[in-house]
Amino acid sequence: MDVRIINPFLSAALHVLKTMAGIEATPGKPFVKKDKHALGDVSAIIGISGEARGSMALTFSESCIKAVVSKLLGVEVTKLDADVEDAVGELTNMICGDARRRLGEEGISLQAGIPTIVTGKDHSIRHINDGPYLAVPFETSFGGFVVEVAFSKDRYTAPQKR
Amino acid sequence: MDVRIINPFLSAALHVLKTMAGIEATPGKPFVKKDKHALGDVSAIIGISGEARGSMALTFSESCIKAVVSKLLGVEVTKLDADVEDAVGELTNMICGDARRRLGEEGISLQAGIPTIVTGKDHSIRHINDGPYLAVPFETSFGGFVVEVAFSKDRYTAPQKR
Repeated sequence: MDVRIINPFLSAALHVLKTMAGIEATPGKPFVKKDKHALGDVSAIIGISGEARGSMALTFSESCIKAVVSKLLGVEVTKLDADVEDAVGELTNMICGDARRRLGEEGISLQAGIPTIVTGKDHSIRHINDGPYLAVPFETSFGGFVVEVAFSKDRYTAPQKR
Repeated sequence: MDVRIINPFLSAALHVLKTMAGIEATPGKPFVKKDKHALGDVSAIIGISGEARGSMALTFSESCIKAVVSKLLGVEVTKLDADVEDAVGELTNMICGDARRRLGEEGISLQAGIPTIVTGKDHSIRHINDGPYLAVPFETSFGGFVVEVAFSKDRYTAPQKR
């Protein structure tokens, strides 16, 4: 598995959370087995196409996303309403945009779809793919979240640089 | 709202369900208000980019997706396992591919990401978009499903043909 296309998404998630919400996250042990799925309360999913076809998902516990959005918006968030969903969508656009910029610098051009937000206690997410895949759980002082990135093997060409 | 970019996804969903699973679905009253969300047990989400940036979601009740996948695979499905998720992913690729083919004939070129499957009792889906949006509930004799298509207004150009 060539994770070089995945790492920029992880770096982008850390960078955006730190700069936009002032939240430091510590990466845990990645899971690469596709039979283990992130379980969460709020997820954001965004499709990726272009030189590689894939999907990124951010899956948050309720406590974590409330803290992230509270810091992002500067107001205390107490319930998961449409404003929180909008903020999670914006966060997803920022992370995906930052990752695409990083990959663009390596000569890999990707386009993104629009974010879709899933809410529901303990829902589970699974990407249907046959290429590179990685899920990394992160811990913050407000609870955990998982960043999952999956690509199809078709149209994926390893970067020539580096 | 220009629904011309959305209708092919609805036609594709009906066509694929009928030809692949032999299931006839009857469309109900569309909801265009973004504050009404599909509630379901299994959803498939796929990102769209290219000449328009968007997302398609299929949201099924448990009874409906079990019937669809049973007919698709030719074996009775009794639980929502990885095989069912794979089948839903394949169905999503087929519907999105059929819609893209239809739009391609109208001169609109779209690319798709990979399907992401969400499972979880009564989860809710919301697209973060500022452009054309439509959700259509369908009824089958096995229960209901909803097809939701949302696009961002950026990069969207109405087709010149027709």
